[in-house]
Amino acid sequence: MRVVNFNPGPAALPVSALERARDEMLDFMGTGMSVMEHSHRGKEFEAVHNEAIALLRELLGIPDSHYVMFLQGGGHLQFAMVPMNFLPAGKSADYLLTGHWAKVAYEEALNIGKANVAANTEQDKRFVRIPKASEIKLDPSAAYVHLTSNNTIYGTQFHSFPDTGKVPLVADMSSDFLWKKFDVSKFGLIYAGAQKNIGPSGVTVVVARKDLVDGGERKDVPKILRYSTHAKNNSLYNTPPTFAIYMMRNVLQWVKAQGGLDAIGKANDEKGKVLYGCMDKLASFYRAPVEKESRSYMNVVFRLPSEALEEKFVAEAKKQNMVGLKGHRMVGGIRVSTYNAVSLDNVKQLVGFMESFAKSNG
Amino acid sequence: MRVVNFNPGPAALPVSALERARDEMLDFMGTGMSVMEHSHRGKEFEAVHNEAIALLRELLGIPDSHYVMFLQGGGHLQFAMVPMNFLPAGKSADYLLTGHWAKVAYEEALNIGKANVAANTEQDKRFVRIPKASEIKLDPSAAYVHLTSNNTIYGTQFHSFPDTGKVPLVADMSSDFLWKKFDVSKFGLIYAGAQKNIGPSGVTVVVARKDLVDGGERKDVPKILRYSTHAKNNSLYNTPPTFAIYMMRNVLQWVKAQGGLDAIGKANDEKGKVLYGCMDKLASFYRAPVEKESRSYMNVVFRLPSEALEEKFVAEAKKQNMVGLKGHRMVGGIRVSTYNAVSLDNVKQLVGFMESFAKSNG
Repeated sequence: MRVVNFNPGPAALPVSALERARDEMLDFMGTGMSVMEHSHRGKEFEAVHNEAIALLRELLGIPDSHYVMFLQGGGHLQFAMVPMNFLPAGKSADYLLTGHWAKVAYEEALNIGKANVAANTEQDKRFVRIPKASEIKLDPSAAYVHLTSNNTIYGTQFHSFPDTGKVPLVADMSSDFLWKKFDVSKFGLIYAGAQKNIGPSGVTVVVARKDLVDGGERKDVPKILRYSTHAKNNSLYNTPPTFAIYMMRNVLQWVKAQGGLDAIGKANDEKGKVLYGCMDKLASFYRAPVEKESRSYMNVVFRLPSEALEEKFVAEAKKQNMVGLKGHRMVGGIRVSTYNAVSLDNVKQLVGFMESFAKSNG
Repeated sequence: MRVVNFNPGPAALPVSALERARDEMLDFMGTGMSVMEHSHRGKEFEAVHNEAIALLRELLGIPDSHYVMFLQGGGHLQFAMVPMNFLPAGKSADYLLTGHWAKVAYEEALNIGKANVAANTEQDKRFVRIPKASEIKLDPSAAYVHLTSNNTIYGTQFHSFPDTGKVPLVADMSSDFLWKKFDVSKFGLIYAGAQKNIGPSGVTVVVARKDLVDGGERKDVPKILRYSTHAKNNSLYNTPPTFAIYMMRNVLQWVKAQGGLDAIGKANDEKGKVLYGCMDKLASFYRAPVEKESRSYMNVVFRLPSEALEEKFVAEAKKQNMVGLKGHRMVGGIRVSTYNAVSLDNVKQLVGFMESFAKSNG
């Protein structure tokens, strides 16, 4: 029996994407072999690869001004590749510190060049909010501005993005990419590890403005770490993680079948409303550490009156077939990750449990 | 129906490894979710991860002096990581050029530091042999010596390794890792993209001497690109490609069930003998471009009397359910990749076909 999976990532995948993988495992499209056993340069895999790119372009409305790339190494390698490619000596990059991963990205940039903290919402070793526009001090001559659109650990999310003028905006969207439609053209570069909304771990989507990527190849950066290398070769410069791309294609087909990102975005809004609605109603029992305007619709975090009750909450939810609810070890508490493959019904089931748990233990 | 798959990589996988993946796709070990949907920090995935490491250590007899790491980015990222980690300013590294990928590794090293060609068997734009020990001019003060143990495109393979004295030997074993047992302790670092003998694309095995990895962390290298980062964190510094590691574990279980690397090595020897035996017997029809002592037991290349016959060979083999025989686009001809999951029976079937094809077309 399948469980209701609130894991923070790697996370729940649409059943149809998994079923397709299962059914084709030994014989992909009548070719007598698994998609994993196909050459990445054969027409069978190439069709999958290009379909994944086309689906992303269609679903998000990615304009021709931007490349779509599939890389390896997760968000972490992007923490390094972004400054390696776009932070020349003599320049500085602006970083918005809104959570743990934003800080790690900033620290990696410091290993490579000069980086500046344009905003920092850390307080008492925690991040409970997204900075207001007025708090963000941007350097108009910065090489780029980097932010983390959704903070998985702390449960905060940007609901509007700062205007960075002519300075390219770079966003780590690992944990909310594809949660709804947004204007890709406003970004210089977007990256997202797949393992939340898009697919399994092992592939990273990068969407980058062509003029930035093509705007001069740095010779002091290893070739494999230059975006231009991958852009010029349609992400087939080296052997790509073929199965992960195949799974992503399956997930994107599912997104389209759901009605695209309008439908997905609507479902995510509804899921968030139901969950936060329950928390607000039972605010004395389910304490929200995050400021209202900064609430994440992907990772909903809350505390219970005691750690013992939090443990009990996790254990009893598990008995009712709901898993993945433990908060990140850095912050404790409860975290409900409601990525795309988690349905409104899944969330309603949890909310029903939350109501009865509060009644029994409040 | 499954085909006989002679693909050069991504390549054939053991059926049992695929069947297990199929059967567990929606419910891994009774957990109600796919292994892809599990947290990489949960006990379920961690058991898979550690079993894969333990199996590799057991099968190859990897000593405690060496780390085993699972990274992303394929051989190509290793082309960069090796010099980034081990080639300091003021030092030079020795590269043995025995094929296309060896050259690419060398060229990537030049993007990072100083590298020296210690041997080069290129002649008329082709590589048909492994250098003799007497041809290799090693620099005793080199940072390391780099070689490619098997040259997938040209079909050559090192059958003994040069003695590099105190200089660490670094080997790209992407296309023959696990083809038989060898003495790991002689190597400073070994890397191998999984997509030949070990698993699907998307994971790279790195086996590295602990004293080299621990011997001083370079601060001028991004943290994600330091071996020490991954070694210290049991390859769980960032989210690993969980499904690729799971598949590798399944493949390693199969290797063990076959009788380990003694049995696998014996089978590979036999496969090579049968195939090269046929070529030698029909040498006027199946012309071998590679010198006998340098023959690869993983990628067997040959030419037919004409390109038209080569095309016919590939097409007729396909009718008999055998695929993946076309030579690399750089060299043409025929390439038979006989990685571990290709059985002796598969090779015998091909040899039967080769005999009758030569008779009909010779």
